[in-house]
Amino acid sequence: MSGGIAQFQAAPGVINLALGHPAPELLPVESIAEIVGSAVLRHGAGGLDYGDPQGPQPTIEALRRRLARVDARVPHQDQLAITAGTSAAIDRVASLFTRPGDVVLVEAPTYHLALRILSDHPIDLVAVPGDADGLDADALARETRRVRAEGRTVRLVYSVPTFSNPTGASLSADRRRALAQVLRTEGLLLVEDDAYRELAYDGEAPPSVWSEDPGRVLRLGTFSKSLAPGLRVGFVTAPPELIQRFTESGLADSGGGAAHFAAVVVGDVMASGLYATTVERLRSGYRARRDALAGAVADHLATFGARWTVPSGGYFLWLTLPGLNTSTLLSAASAVGVEYVPGVRFYLDGQGGEDSLRLAFSRYSADELREGVARLARAVGSATRRGTK
Amino acid sequence: MSGGIAQFQAAPGVINLALGHPAPELLPVESIAEIVGSAVLRHGAGGLDYGDPQGPQPTIEALRRRLARVDARVPHQDQLAITAGTSAAIDRVASLFTRPGDVVLVEAPTYHLALRILSDHPIDLVAVPGDADGLDADALARETRRVRAEGRTVRLVYSVPTFSNPTGASLSADRRRALAQVLRTEGLLLVEDDAYRELAYDGEAPPSVWSEDPGRVLRLGTFSKSLAPGLRVGFVTAPPELIQRFTESGLADSGGGAAHFAAVVVGDVMASGLYATTVERLRSGYRARRDALAGAVADHLATFGARWTVPSGGYFLWLTLPGLNTSTLLSAASAVGVEYVPGVRFYLDGQGGEDSLRLAFSRYSADELREGVARLARAVGSATRRGTK
Repeated sequence: MSGGIAQFQAAPGVINLALGHPAPELLPVESIAEIVGSAVLRHGAGGLDYGDPQGPQPTIEALRRRLARVDARVPHQDQLAITAGTSAAIDRVASLFTRPGDVVLVEAPTYHLALRILSDHPIDLVAVPGDADGLDADALARETRRVRAEGRTVRLVYSVPTFSNPTGASLSADRRRALAQVLRTEGLLLVEDDAYRELAYDGEAPPSVWSEDPGRVLRLGTFSKSLAPGLRVGFVTAPPELIQRFTESGLADSGGGAAHFAAVVVGDVMASGLYATTVERLRSGYRARRDALAGAVADHLATFGARWTVPSGGYFLWLTLPGLNTSTLLSAASAVGVEYVPGVRFYLDGQGGEDSLRLAFSRYSADELREGVARLARAVGSATRRGTK
Repeated sequence: MSGGIAQFQAAPGVINLALGHPAPELLPVESIAEIVGSAVLRHGAGGLDYGDPQGPQPTIEALRRRLARVDARVPHQDQLAITAGTSAAIDRVASLFTRPGDVVLVEAPTYHLALRILSDHPIDLVAVPGDADGLDADALARETRRVRAEGRTVRLVYSVPTFSNPTGASLSADRRRALAQVLRTEGLLLVEDDAYRELAYDGEAPPSVWSEDPGRVLRLGTFSKSLAPGLRVGFVTAPPELIQRFTESGLADSGGGAAHFAAVVVGDVMASGLYATTVERLRSGYRARRDALAGAVADHLATFGARWTVPSGGYFLWLTLPGLNTSTLLSAASAVGVEYVPGVRFYLDGQGGEDSLRLAFSRYSADELREGVARLARAVGSATRRGTK
């Protein structure tokens, strides 16, 4: 383990399309190195002391200006707080807004590691079926009523409605409105994981569900995808009384603002204009990778009857191989040097996604992505010939 | 709120001895500004990517070398992980190591905001009486058996055994051994809040309870007091299977290492020697403040029958004013421009400490501390004359 710094160390020769991690060469190392020393000097003791529990005000102001450009609504000062990243924020939400035995509804399929974070709390997760277009509002209403009819409390709904992890799909405007309507009629609170908003490749991202109804949504944003995940800085937009629950929690009272120092640095990165240029660079870099992956999938896998939708943003392409079991296929794929995440991992208790898989196009170059898909096609080809259907 | 960065903004003219915050002028702003840019370049993408869930290995190695100097035992590689500071670590411990309805025993008096962090979880807190010398092992054993006799599960014990917040006291070697013995015989796990170890003013700090029995203790360390709280970086030393629970939790799986970027910076600060020189500077600066405060207390308050022990480390002096109610006294003190925390705040449900108070000597200069105590003496004097006894 000596010398290790990053979470992900690729095995030599393997193209690991399982991991939703950024491309190391796209991380803004030099620009952050250039700005960070002067950020420390500029903010002086305030940047190193316990931070404002809401977050550094300059960072909050810069973020509000940014959201004015990339979302349909700008949070008021009291509708926003800085977090220690989305994973930590999901954990906080579970601690602060659920009680033991509560039910949290989760989209199916959904971000598998969010399920793990939630499962570290004494709550029960119940899946709401989605489809290729994302969370279905009617299914959500039905499932809410069904669970409540059992006398149980439904506290929250978790979903990734924009450039979804794992499907890459985004809720249509109609579905967003219908979802907001169900949140109101059923008295639900949506945890909107909005991690991929900045990584939009075909025009701007659709408006957040939070912007549709800021009284019913905790929208979790992050700088992990748009700047650097190691900073561990994100944000939440939510009703003022819920923001207050964050900023007046025991943790905030004792430790001050989440990730304070890194959040101060992020504020300077935004104010300097470096953030906007970094996002442009990432969009263009990841767009090319998305195109390379989607092109290779069409070239190599269409012949096997594969189905997929080219995502308009984010890190992921969701691939369905009718008749194949992608969990079984994985060892054959590994044997030829390519990895992915089988679809079942994104379903609670593995109830679904048997013939699907998630490919991340974020970490590897266009050439490596094409090679990875070629390898995957070889594994699919031999599985099909062997009749592992 | 515009422009605010730090958590604490002192009201003009007030000497606020309530807050356990560092002296802004002792925070190593220039040195960190100097080192941070090259740290980013040196670690490259690895410092900005998702981090190793255990923490950056260079930081862990530097920390092990440091603990060899300031504690009686060096953790093995698998007995250590980086945290996002002690407040976040207490929150994690509550999430990962308790179940709803469990009892967590807490020293009385103890760090009041730790009580708040723990109270954000569905557990019950039960106080174990301490005295001027800290947690009493016999009382702990008695209370554990009493709670268990009610059919309840006692999961953890929380204590600050070294340079305590709020009392400044440290457990004697005999009490540490007795405590470790009770942890074993009763099958308890101690959460040892070891925040003040580095701030030792009269020789080195006593060995941690963790060093006494590393199989029964989660020791929480932090860089908040020895470097800068805004970094939000700390560490835990604990049995390997508990470290694993941290590093394999849903949160770590999803977000990677806690406070990764800041933890990488801390590693470079340690490796460069800057950490050791900063700690020396802090020790000498805070020792002078401790002496100023203790001297002023002797000069101004002994006449009122006050009792106190001069602390050998940390941030705090605990003052008892027999016959006075320090909650009532607070408004008189505020009126003359000095603040403190009444003793009752450090007791569960305010059951104790009525005639005591906590004074922090960390944030203010020696002159301000003397002036603050002179003001406090005026408030005590008029309360005594008015017979608010």
